[in-house]
Amino acid sequence: MCFGNTVSGQSAGKIKYTDARELMLLGKGFDVTESYYSRLPLSGKDGFRKELWSLARNSAGLAVRFSSNSTSIAVRWTVMTNMSMNHMPATGIKGVDLYSLDNGKWYFMGTARPTDKENNAVVIKNMTAKQREYIAYLPLYDGTESLSFGVDSLSTIGMPQEKVLLKSDDGGAILFYGTSITQGGCASRPGMAYTAILGRMLQRETINLGFSGNGRMDKSMAEAICKVSAQTVVLDCLPNTNAQIVRDSAYNFIRMILDAKPGVKIYMVENPVFPTLRFDQKTAAELSEENIEWRSVYQKLKKERFRNVYFISGAKLAGCDGEGTVDGVHMTDLGFLRYAEEFAKFLR
Amino acid sequence: MCFGNTVSGQSAGKIKYTDARELMLLGKGFDVTESYYSRLPLSGKDGFRKELWSLARNSAGLAVRFSSNSTSIAVRWTVMTNMSMNHMPATGIKGVDLYSLDNGKWYFMGTARPTDKENNAVVIKNMTAKQREYIAYLPLYDGTESLSFGVDSLSTIGMPQEKVLLKSDDGGAILFYGTSITQGGCASRPGMAYTAILGRMLQRETINLGFSGNGRMDKSMAEAICKVSAQTVVLDCLPNTNAQIVRDSAYNFIRMILDAKPGVKIYMVENPVFPTLRFDQKTAAELSEENIEWRSVYQKLKKERFRNVYFISGAKLAGCDGEGTVDGVHMTDLGFLRYAEEFAKFLR
Repeated sequence: MCFGNTVSGQSAGKIKYTDARELMLLGKGFDVTESYYSRLPLSGKDGFRKELWSLARNSAGLAVRFSSNSTSIAVRWTVMTNMSMNHMPATGIKGVDLYSLDNGKWYFMGTARPTDKENNAVVIKNMTAKQREYIAYLPLYDGTESLSFGVDSLSTIGMPQEKVLLKSDDGGAILFYGTSITQGGCASRPGMAYTAILGRMLQRETINLGFSGNGRMDKSMAEAICKVSAQTVVLDCLPNTNAQIVRDSAYNFIRMILDAKPGVKIYMVENPVFPTLRFDQKTAAELSEENIEWRSVYQKLKKERFRNVYFISGAKLAGCDGEGTVDGVHMTDLGFLRYAEEFAKFLR
Repeated sequence: MCFGNTVSGQSAGKIKYTDARELMLLGKGFDVTESYYSRLPLSGKDGFRKELWSLARNSAGLAVRFSSNSTSIAVRWTVMTNMSMNHMPATGIKGVDLYSLDNGKWYFMGTARPTDKENNAVVIKNMTAKQREYIAYLPLYDGTESLSFGVDSLSTIGMPQEKVLLKSDDGGAILFYGTSITQGGCASRPGMAYTAILGRMLQRETINLGFSGNGRMDKSMAEAICKVSAQTVVLDCLPNTNAQIVRDSAYNFIRMILDAKPGVKIYMVENPVFPTLRFDQKTAAELSEENIEWRSVYQKLKKERFRNVYFISGAKLAGCDGEGTVDGVHMTDLGFLRYAEEFAKFLR
């Protein structure tokens, strides 16, 4: 076996494709959306800033659950803009990755690496012909226009057979509202966004409402969150706001959700300790002021006897060695695994 | 403070630039090379396969040590081919990242993100004006044609002032010979290649002779390794070979080094447990056969009483959760940190 720098299984025998819309979609908070893989409700379109509406087209956090007895799995997909960034690999921006259940745990199987707007890749092959449960994660920073899964022509593919990590219609999903970090910047592949890791860890559906650069506690977003059935809401938007926005908007934003969703649990996440803060004195002072404002909103809510509001400190979110980011801000898979482990302590 | 998806400090006041050739270069095994940032000896040029010679132009593992009292650090650099890959971000392929010493430990400061063949970026700003020790890591999968560091016009920049992580002329460096993984595929930034992490962990110079897809135990490479002063040699080439190559070449390759470098310590690294092996039966069988051949070479050397030959099992190299890679083969920062932690147990 020789692994080079262009390793990926592109060969395949006779493969039949099934449109992912025939399988189970996880992570979608709203039934009626602009396109099948969009993330905001069509009914509210006029109320959102255009940046939010555009970012909602990115399929961050969406995942497809299915079951198959194939010996190989292929993916055929088309992305919307074929965009690129210089601090996140194409596999994370617009690739698809696949996990399978083994003894109750989800294990990574392989990555469908994007080559263009239209893509086709064999993700795994040479397997024994056994019925397996799958979850595939969709592009984080591009839109998914179409998606199909390919299996051996004589095998079957269909809805999940095991009742693990399924779509929750009873409010059991966890909704994450936030920034580029929440959206998955800069995971190496979609399954390593922290919302995806947590989904596998906790075996719960997660809904990703991360909007790169735009997690600013818009009133329109609070209204949208109120419409989602999820009864656990994680607010991780601080890196897109500042002390002024927190002072002006945070309390009302959170109260709207608390008032609209009786019994909802709300987790208020502090800024992580970005590694550059050790050196950049100006930014450190700004974030410190913002964190103080955020905590005072939490204390006000506690005084008002909202018992289901929790505070997640940012101290350990990204780890303590300063190595969790690609650029001082956006998490790598390393930072995201630490995020997920820290969040899991609260959300379990 | 608002972090978006294009965050990076690009503004700068009056900056003066110093060519990195006036500072201390770490990680270069051979004095006379094709260009200043090449990795193989010019004298041996005719003996190397052309793929090796070409890959030697990639500045993987090279790093610049310096000291400065500037409140900001900028980087100006030109890469050779401006290449890209779909499973590794441009920051890792052709970016530059910077660390500073704080209480005896190296901390990440920021990343100079590449935008073109010629690049310029402010890596860190808003610092107190204090004398600091620096190490900057060079592009992993592209060549470095030129490199300068920018500091505030009224500050100083020069050779390291503290005797930590310096160039070793006494054989104290650790040489790594291997594959794309050794070369740093797919770290998010150059400082997260496992050889770079280990350098900081152990405070020792590391020399990266990783050649993507081409770590095949060529005789020319054994001859080159014999010329390097490093008295610690890690052989991590198995993912580029197969059982046949191990049978035919490994023993002679290692004996050449042992015979030419009295007292050398050699670490024979097994294949890591690639996550896909849980599912891909064919590849699992191939790698298992290869590992057995590799171990039998080790046992033969032990029987011949080579006491300074060590075996590093691949069982835990990439961790045990299957999450350390971007594509089933190449490590992310997460996989690389695990690699470094595992290697450190042996190399400390």
